[in-house]
Amino acid sequence: MKDLNYDDLEVGYDVPAVPGMDEADIQTPCLILDLDALERNIRKMGDYAKAHGMRHRSHGKMHKSVDVQKLQEELGGAVGVCCQKVSEAEVFVRGGIKDVLVSNQVRDPAKIDRLASLPKMGSKITVCLDDVDNVADLSEAAVRHGTTIHCFIEIDCGAGRCGVRTADAVVEIAQAIDAAEGLKFTGIQAYQGAMQHMDSYADRKAKIDAAVAQVKEAVDALTEVGLKPEFVSGGGTGSYYFESNSGVYNELQCGSYAFMDADYGRIQDKDGNRIDQGEWENALFILTSVMSHAKPDKAIVDAGLKAQSVDSGLPFIFGRDDVEYVKCSDEHGVVSDPKGVLKVNDKLRLVPGHCDPTCNVHDWYVGVRGGKVETLWPVSARGKAY
Amino acid sequence: MKDLNYDDLEVGYDVPAVPGMDEADIQTPCLILDLDALERNIRKMGDYAKAHGMRHRSHGKMHKSVDVQKLQEELGGAVGVCCQKVSEAEVFVRGGIKDVLVSNQVRDPAKIDRLASLPKMGSKITVCLDDVDNVADLSEAAVRHGTTIHCFIEIDCGAGRCGVRTADAVVEIAQAIDAAEGLKFTGIQAYQGAMQHMDSYADRKAKIDAAVAQVKEAVDALTEVGLKPEFVSGGGTGSYYFESNSGVYNELQCGSYAFMDADYGRIQDKDGNRIDQGEWENALFILTSVMSHAKPDKAIVDAGLKAQSVDSGLPFIFGRDDVEYVKCSDEHGVVSDPKGVLKVNDKLRLVPGHCDPTCNVHDWYVGVRGGKVETLWPVSARGKAY
Repeated sequence: MKDLNYDDLEVGYDVPAVPGMDEADIQTPCLILDLDALERNIRKMGDYAKAHGMRHRSHGKMHKSVDVQKLQEELGGAVGVCCQKVSEAEVFVRGGIKDVLVSNQVRDPAKIDRLASLPKMGSKITVCLDDVDNVADLSEAAVRHGTTIHCFIEIDCGAGRCGVRTADAVVEIAQAIDAAEGLKFTGIQAYQGAMQHMDSYADRKAKIDAAVAQVKEAVDALTEVGLKPEFVSGGGTGSYYFESNSGVYNELQCGSYAFMDADYGRIQDKDGNRIDQGEWENALFILTSVMSHAKPDKAIVDAGLKAQSVDSGLPFIFGRDDVEYVKCSDEHGVVSDPKGVLKVNDKLRLVPGHCDPTCNVHDWYVGVRGGKVETLWPVSARGKAY
Repeated sequence: MKDLNYDDLEVGYDVPAVPGMDEADIQTPCLILDLDALERNIRKMGDYAKAHGMRHRSHGKMHKSVDVQKLQEELGGAVGVCCQKVSEAEVFVRGGIKDVLVSNQVRDPAKIDRLASLPKMGSKITVCLDDVDNVADLSEAAVRHGTTIHCFIEIDCGAGRCGVRTADAVVEIAQAIDAAEGLKFTGIQAYQGAMQHMDSYADRKAKIDAAVAQVKEAVDALTEVGLKPEFVSGGGTGSYYFESNSGVYNELQCGSYAFMDADYGRIQDKDGNRIDQGEWENALFILTSVMSHAKPDKAIVDAGLKAQSVDSGLPFIFGRDDVEYVKCSDEHGVVSDPKGVLKVNDKLRLVPGHCDPTCNVHDWYVGVRGGKVETLWPVSARGKAY
């Protein structure tokens, strides 16, 4: 971030590293980004979207970083950001992102008020609805602030969380939005979250085929009543090629492709290869150090539950098959080291099980290139859950 | 915290609440503390330790809060804090805590340097060792800073992580510390972490009996060479009564008793009752709101993986048996609501599966009493993992 004054930051207490430092001197545990790999991933997704005539709205809930988002817009042609919470939207708007979709419902009156005020800072704001009762609240707040809130209707196309399930319900909400002052009906939110992590390409395709049929029915019904949606938005790292070739979607919302993680990495492409073996590169790592080796076959590293989320399984150790991360407690990881190859203060790169909630426990991304720390980016929206 | 200027804080963007606010207006998801329950827990543990002639060094890795630690010292007679990382120690020292034990190894040269400088700020600093090779590094840094580092030797009495296993190894390290300039051998660190969460009281007792025997052997061996340790420190929420009656330990390190969580709550006392049904009260909750109810039997709440750690299982909903938190994704919780009793914007109190890593994703504790927000405490050492 351009405004960071590194002279004011104490390595250790404030930050894990400062630019110019050797990678070997980074204080662990912390998140590091391989900037070359990150830039290649971002360019690749941008090129794919362009070649397929799709808009790409990169998902900022994954990285929560204004700097990464700007890179996605600059190098990858991303049209804006998605996020999940009003507090995240506030961070992205203040960080200069001009097109922000809250791909979630906003129901609390204070949150609606905060959301409705955001367009005054110069950004286009879109929110999702799945209940006709939400229309009046949003409209009242937009009118009060003199702003326009763009509205997507969320379809539950398999995730089983928010969203309506029938074309009738979509039409009912769209008509209510269309009639409401201060609101503009602009699209459909249809993200099939539940299938993204299914290993088999064919299984994922079957789930998306069903979702596409469901979304198409809603789009047709909307078109019939004169409310054809401008945007049909969805798609993730495990599915974007399906939505891109569906003839129904025109906007992607991929997030994890940029960083990768262990859980996504193991899903298969159409040829049966892991997607982290060619399709995408691991760009995000938890850098960790060995801090005890009191038992000959076991190294204890300094990255435990405070340095990652293990909801989707343990991390793997990047580029090593002689040692394995086998257990995680609050402050420690246990690394099986049967041949005793590790020494105290050795550093390892862990690929986290699940990138999103792992990024959310860290305050900083340390960007590295060629063995040197090149940049330090705050996890700008870290902890912004409300 | 006394220095917080609430006028500068924007509810929503900066903080989930400010003092004086009704509990109903708190922005969710966030952590709330039932201050009455918290104070009762703290007093109870303090009274127990006093009655049993034990020192209580409360574990700050759980709450990471200078304010909670001060309450533990004021109301519960805690003699100081334990923490796990140098960056945490830095926060507690700067926050005015005068006796800080890093109950972990510190091996990285930069971290050793940071640790060795801390006594200059007026606090007593103790660190743990499990390797004789660590002695020279610590000594050199202490001499360079003109400080004294107090040293505990860590015994692995069952956790299977850091720590040495034999009395011989303990004596070897103690003698090296005793001979080193700038270091002072003062105690034994022997925390049996692996047994704390075993449900059965008898199973836990068996594990601690073995640990006590192992620690006693080391203490006897040290006494024989004229290095009787001043402190023998350990014990957690699932075991403190065993250490207190062991005749070997003289210092407790309990943490979770103050807040409680779902995983600790289900372990049993000697009468077979859950320890959250009488021994300790739930004082920590994730406050969450219903933000979608598009399906009649399912409410979607706003607390997912960004608001908690699920490493030890899902949260339970406090005081309710008609609804159940059944699934957790990045931003959402799915609450089974078979009778459709919940409405959008209803608030629920979740008891997190595991308090330590859950506290570590939040920036604030909202202290409530009698339906009002009484205080707002920063999670002072949040993210301080390095």
